Amino acid sequence: MTLAEQVVQGDIRAAARLMRDIDDNRPNAVRELKQLYPHTGKAYIIGITGPPGAGKSTLVDQLTASFRKRGRKVGVVAIDPTSPFTGGAILGDRIRMNRHSCDEGVFIRSLATRGALGGLSRSTTDVGMVMDALGMDIVIIETVGVGQDEVDIVKAAHTTCVVMVPGLGDDIQAIKAGILEIGDVFVVNKADRDGADRTARELSTMLEMRNAPQGSWNPRVLKTEAQRGTGIEELTGEILAHRDFLFSSGTIDNFLRERNQRHFMDILRDGLIRSALDFMAADNSMARIVEGMGNNSIDPYSAAEDVLSQMLADTNRGTDH
Amino acid sequence: MTLAEQVVQGDIRAAARLMRDIDDNRPNAVRELKQLYPHTGKAYIIGITGPPGAGKSTLVDQLTASFRKRGRKVGVVAIDPTSPFTGGAILGDRIRMNRHSCDEGVFIRSLATRGALGGLSRSTTDVGMVMDALGMDIVIIETVGVGQDEVDIVKAAHTTCVVMVPGLGDDIQAIKAGILEIGDVFVVNKADRDGADRTARELSTMLEMRNAPQGSWNPRVLKTEAQRGTGIEELTGEILAHRDFLFSSGTIDNFLRERNQRHFMDILRDGLIRSALDFMAADNSMARIVEGMGNNSIDPYSAAEDVLSQMLADTNRGTDH
Repeated sequence: MTLAEQVVQGDIRAAARLMRDIDDNRPNAVRELKQLYPHTGKAYIIGITGPPGAGKSTLVDQLTASFRKRGRKVGVVAIDPTSPFTGGAILGDRIRMNRHSCDEGVFIRSLATRGALGGLSRSTTDVGMVMDALGMDIVIIETVGVGQDEVDIVKAAHTTCVVMVPGLGDDIQAIKAGILEIGDVFVVNKADRDGADRTARELSTMLEMRNAPQGSWNPRVLKTEAQRGTGIEELTGEILAHRDFLFSSGTIDNFLRERNQRHFMDILRDGLIRSALDFMAADNSMARIVEGMGNNSIDPYSAAEDVLSQMLADTNRGTDH
Repeated sequence: MTLAEQVVQGDIRAAARLMRDIDDNRPNAVRELKQLYPHTGKAYIIGITGPPGAGKSTLVDQLTASFRKRGRKVGVVAIDPTSPFTGGAILGDRIRMNRHSCDEGVFIRSLATRGALGGLSRSTTDVGMVMDALGMDIVIIETVGVGQDEVDIVKAAHTTCVVMVPGLGDDIQAIKAGILEIGDVFVVNKADRDGADRTARELSTMLEMRNAPQGSWNPRVLKTEAQRGTGIEELTGEILAHRDFLFSSGTIDNFLRERNQRHFMDILRDGLIRSALDFMAADNSMARIVEGMGNNSIDPYSAAEDVLSQMLADTNRGTDH
């Protein structure tokens, strides 16, 4: 039996192995993912994003408990903002959410931000697919929400919760403006802190000022104290309300089309870059170009155009499709 | 005279126009950048990064003043963490650093994070090149340092300053661990706040615990109150000390080689994706693939492999190199 077949039958060890193969970029991973693909699309994906220090991990922990109480299986993909150099996930799976560690209905996986080929958004999608095929009803993706990469990740979620916290200071206004458009639910966490009401009011005002198209979802601002579990049930309810809206309004079709297109483009992009690296490795042209840039005899724009035209041509010679 | 020639002669309006053309992805921009390339490589690039709320803008403002006092021309590229959807830079150039607005020796440009073709790191490099060719001695790149994109951006800087602030909470430990490797200088800003000494001590301890190779640069942790200008001269001094180290140790050669390689790969990547989109536009294959993914009749991995092999072959038919 292939790993993919085992995963579809609910084999947790097989799922863990496949995720490791995805992480390591092993060639069999793609073969397995192809097999897995028709068995995906059932899980509901929730994105949790927000600045560092907003208490996202605790909130995810509480949401997990809340969905478990409702009898749903929950997968968690936590993107740890760790070193792109060592590639390690520092807040490892072990120290996350200890209380769910004996629960077979919870599957937690940390991904590190990598500088490698294949962006983070692609590995997140792939890992989420494995959890989906494994039978997780809910997949929660947690990420620090500032960079473009992170925005791409939450775009893959059916419902995106943006978590804010009172009193983060200076450039928070700009960030708020940036995330207004990606959030379906807004959460002011640590609501016992000074300024929580003001932050919530400001967010509401900014949301009201948007020119949202008629018939679109109206995001609300909720307050939580994740540490104590306050406001969690309301948050779960709001996420489910957004899910109902997605399906009843038909918005889901458009969402899925866009998500599939991004997923495909992610994979194609990886393939293109891999082909280019292989092509340049053959005649060591990269080293020559970089050296030329160093002494200003080659500009990178012309060099890229050259490689591109050669590559697209040369690759054909040997293969003949 | 071309825009590039005008920029090299110090024409600020021409520089602004070229930056706009780069932003708008206009076809002439690449032609001008090719011409500009041999005139770049003189500016010293400083990256300023750190979490939202760390007071980076104020610090950049103070550093600018400090380098101006030393008679250096300063360019600033501020990456505003604004909407990837509207693409606008909310904290526009106008409201930034008003006090330098009449100073011909300061050139400020905000870039928005874009979801478009061509990543942010490429446009930052291109805009930095224009400032370099224009005659700016120092180019400061300011970015919110969390995502992979942002890390790529600061890797292009000769000296990277990581700005922290006391009391940001939970996941700050992980972030600190992640940024240890990208920082050449560490700054605890808002040093009048509770916990500043502790944050500085923690950072120092973490830095000491690293297994840095013999003969490599030893980053220090400085404290500043950018708002009042406290600690700025020491910071400037430390940046210059790091510059001296780069050149005297010979580390600069390796740094430039890696930077040039990344720059070239950024450009090549853009070209590859553009070619792929053109190729798929010809027979509307993207829509077909996305539809197939929607009804699970096509998996994106196989579809990408197909496009790749066709594309690399088909492109050759018409051209014949």
